[in-house]
Amino acid sequence: MSDQPVVRPAPISGFSEWLPEVRLVELHWLDRIRETFERYGFASVETPAVESLDVLTAKGETSQEVYTLRRLQADPRDASDAKLGLHFDLTVPFARYVAQHFNELVFPFKRYQMQRVWRGERPQEGRFREFTQCDIDVINVDDVPLHFDAELPRIIHEVLTGLGLPAWSLNINNRKVLQGFYEGLGIGDPLAVIRIADKLDKIGTAGVGELLAGAGLSPEQVTAVLDLAQIKGTDASVVDEIGKLGVGSDLLTEGLDELGFVLESLSDLPTGSIVADLSIARGLDYYTGTVYEGKFLDWPGYGSICSGGRYANLAGSFIRRNLPGIGLSIGLTRIFAKLLAEGLVETGPKSPTRVLVALPSAERRADALATAALLRSRGVNTEVYHQASNLKKQLKYAAQKGIPYVWFPRSTKASRTR
Amino acid sequence: MSDQPVVRPAPISGFSEWLPEVRLVELHWLDRIRETFERYGFASVETPAVESLDVLTAKGETSQEVYTLRRLQADPRDASDAKLGLHFDLTVPFARYVAQHFNELVFPFKRYQMQRVWRGERPQEGRFREFTQCDIDVINVDDVPLHFDAELPRIIHEVLTGLGLPAWSLNINNRKVLQGFYEGLGIGDPLAVIRIADKLDKIGTAGVGELLAGAGLSPEQVTAVLDLAQIKGTDASVVDEIGKLGVGSDLLTEGLDELGFVLESLSDLPTGSIVADLSIARGLDYYTGTVYEGKFLDWPGYGSICSGGRYANLAGSFIRRNLPGIGLSIGLTRIFAKLLAEGLVETGPKSPTRVLVALPSAERRADALATAALLRSRGVNTEVYHQASNLKKQLKYAAQKGIPYVWFPRSTKASRTR
Repeated sequence: MSDQPVVRPAPISGFSEWLPEVRLVELHWLDRIRETFERYGFASVETPAVESLDVLTAKGETSQEVYTLRRLQADPRDASDAKLGLHFDLTVPFARYVAQHFNELVFPFKRYQMQRVWRGERPQEGRFREFTQCDIDVINVDDVPLHFDAELPRIIHEVLTGLGLPAWSLNINNRKVLQGFYEGLGIGDPLAVIRIADKLDKIGTAGVGELLAGAGLSPEQVTAVLDLAQIKGTDASVVDEIGKLGVGSDLLTEGLDELGFVLESLSDLPTGSIVADLSIARGLDYYTGTVYEGKFLDWPGYGSICSGGRYANLAGSFIRRNLPGIGLSIGLTRIFAKLLAEGLVETGPKSPTRVLVALPSAERRADALATAALLRSRGVNTEVYHQASNLKKQLKYAAQKGIPYVWFPRSTKASRTR
Repeated sequence: MSDQPVVRPAPISGFSEWLPEVRLVELHWLDRIRETFERYGFASVETPAVESLDVLTAKGETSQEVYTLRRLQADPRDASDAKLGLHFDLTVPFARYVAQHFNELVFPFKRYQMQRVWRGERPQEGRFREFTQCDIDVINVDDVPLHFDAELPRIIHEVLTGLGLPAWSLNINNRKVLQGFYEGLGIGDPLAVIRIADKLDKIGTAGVGELLAGAGLSPEQVTAVLDLAQIKGTDASVVDEIGKLGVGSDLLTEGLDELGFVLESLSDLPTGSIVADLSIARGLDYYTGTVYEGKFLDWPGYGSICSGGRYANLAGSFIRRNLPGIGLSIGLTRIFAKLLAEGLVETGPKSPTRVLVALPSAERRADALATAALLRSRGVNTEVYHQASNLKKQLKYAAQKGIPYVWFPRSTKASRTR
C-alpha cells in the first residue's frame, strides 16, 4: 500500500452503474430485447457515440442538451475539437447513417440500435445524463406501408411482456386525427395546438385550456379540443366515439382509418395493453401519423417508458431523397432504474458460474482443471476455486457469489490406497 | 422533400461504423467473446462512459488523450462541466469501481468488461479515437494466486482461436525477470531500462543500445540487456537459456520460476500460439510480474491485438486497501478493422431474418402474419414481405438481404375452389 493521496470515488449524478448481480439482470433484459427485435427481422446497427455538431443540430430543437468534446490538453482558444458532440438520441444518428450509406442499404431498411446516449441536462427522477435506449425503425424510399404502424407496437408489446414489468400500457394516437380534427374546427395553426395539447400530462385540462384560449381559440374550439383529448379506449370503437363529436375533415377521416386499422390489427393482444389515447400528441414536429407512448399504470407521472411514431422524412436534413419512416424506442435505463428504485428487480447470482470445482489440495489442481475443462466443453460455466483451502471456505465463496453447484473431486486412486 | 439545405454526412476520422452485414459479424464476435469469458466465471461489469477528471488523471501519464465534456450551451468561462471526461481505457474505471463498491463485492472478483473507450489522439492505422475493448481482470485482497497468470492467457487463447483470425501469437514475459536480470547486472534504475527496452519494436536494437548507453550503462551491460531481449521460445526451455547468460539475482530466480510455471501450464496449447518473448517490456509502470502482448505474425509492425499483465495495486489511488490484480484486454476494434481492411472478414447476410413469408396479395396478409407468428414462436427469425407484389420482387428482396428461405403460402381453400 502506497501513501499517495487517495481520490475517493463517488457516483456522478445522472450516470448509473450496477453491481454485478444487477448487471446480470440488465444483460438478460438486453438479450431478450435483442432476440425479439431479431425475431422480426431487424438488423443491428451501431453508430459512433460522437457526431459532428452540424449533424446533431441539423434539427435545432434539442441542441441545448448536447455534450461537446474537447481534448484535455487542447488550447482553450482552439475550437477545432469542439465540432464533435455525443449523440443525444439514436434517431438523428440513424437518419445520418441511412443518408450516408444510402446506396449500400436494402430498403425497406429495418434496424435496431441499442446504445447509450448522453444529455447534458439536470438529472432528476427518470432523467439521466447517460442512458441506454433500444430503438427499432423501418425506413423506406417514398412510402412505408401502414401495417408497420401495427407491427412495431406488437414487437414492443412482446418485448415489454417478456420483461415482466409492473402494469403498463402502450398508448396510441394519430397526428392526422388531431390535426384533421383541429382543421375541422377551423383552427388555423393545428401544429401549435398539438404542441399545447402535449402539455396535458404536466399542466392538466385547465392549464391547457388557458393556453389554448391564449393562442386565440374560441371557447367552443377549446371545449372541442379538450373533449377529443378525453377520449380513451381499448379497441377500434374509439373511432365511432370521435365521430360522435361531430367534427369532420378529409385529414380526420384518413387519420381515423389509420387509427382504426392499427387498433383492429392489435385486437388479439391482451385487453388494456394497447390503448387509444387521444390526449397523446408527442410534441416533436417531425411526427406525421401514428404516435406511441408507453406508461406505467401505477406511476402515470413518471416519464414514458417507450415512445415513437411515424415521420415523413427524417433523413431529409442529410440527403435529397424522400425517406419516411416509423420507429419506437424503449427507454431501458428509465424502466430499469425505476424498477430497481421500487425494489422490483429480483437479483440473483453475482456471477455467471454454474459450477465451482472445489480444490481440496494443491496437488489436485491438475485434476480440478481437467474436470473444469470437461464441464466447459459441455457448455457449463465453471470455475476452479482459486487456491487449495478448507472446503468450508470454498462453500462460503460459492454461496456468496450465488454459484448453485459445487463439484467435489473424487478421491484419486493414490489417496484411496493410502 | 423539403428544400432546406442538406448537411452532407461524412465519416469522422477515427470513429468507425459498419454496414449491417459487417455489424452482424462483429456482433457474432462479441457474443463469442462474452460466452467464453462467462464460461470461465467472469461477471459482466459496465461503467459509465464518463469519469471525473480526478479519477482519469489519478495516474497522470495518459491525461493528454482524455476527451473532456462541455455542454454546448454552457458559458465558456464556466468550468464546472469540464470536470468530466470520457474513459480512455477500462482499467482505470474498473479500479475505481472496485474501490467504490469494495464492501459489496466478493473476492477474488472476476469481471469482464466490453465497452467503447475514447482517446483524443491523431488517428492512424490501428489507432482509433473510439474503439471497443474486451477486458478480463481478476482482483483480490492482498494476493492473486499465480495460476491466474496461466488461466488468463488460456481464456484469451480460446477466444482468439474461436474468432478464426490469421496467424497470431500471444507473447509472454515477466517483469521480475527483466528487473531481476538488470539488478543482477548491477544496473541502478531497472525501471528506466524497462522503459527503454520497451522501444525495441519501434527503434530496433541499435536505437535501444544507444539509449541505454546514454542512460549510463556500460557496453557490457548494454550487450547483456540486448542478449536477454533476443531470447524467444515456445516452451519452458527459455528458462534454461536465460540461465546460460550467467546473470543472477533473487528477483530473477523468482521471475523465472513464475515464467516457467506459466509456460508449463500452457504447454498443452498448440505450439507457437504461446511464446515466451523476453523483449516484451510493457512500458507502463504498474506491471509487476507476468506481462502479455498478442501480435499478428504477418503484421509485426501493427499494434498489439491484446495486452495486459499483473499489477500490484491499481486501485491504490482510490482506496487504502492492497488490491493486486491481473488482466488481459482484447483490442476488438483494432483486430476487426485490420481484418476488414485486409478483406479477411467474410460477411454474410444483411439481416438476421431466416424466413421471408411471401405476400402474393393483400387479402392473404392475415394468413401470412399467422404463418410468421408460428415460425417466430418456434424461434425462427421471420418477416412478412412488406406489401403485396409480384413474387419476383419479393425473391429479389430476400436475395439482396441474404434471407435464405422464402415461404410461399399454400393456396387457401377459397382460391383453390375458384
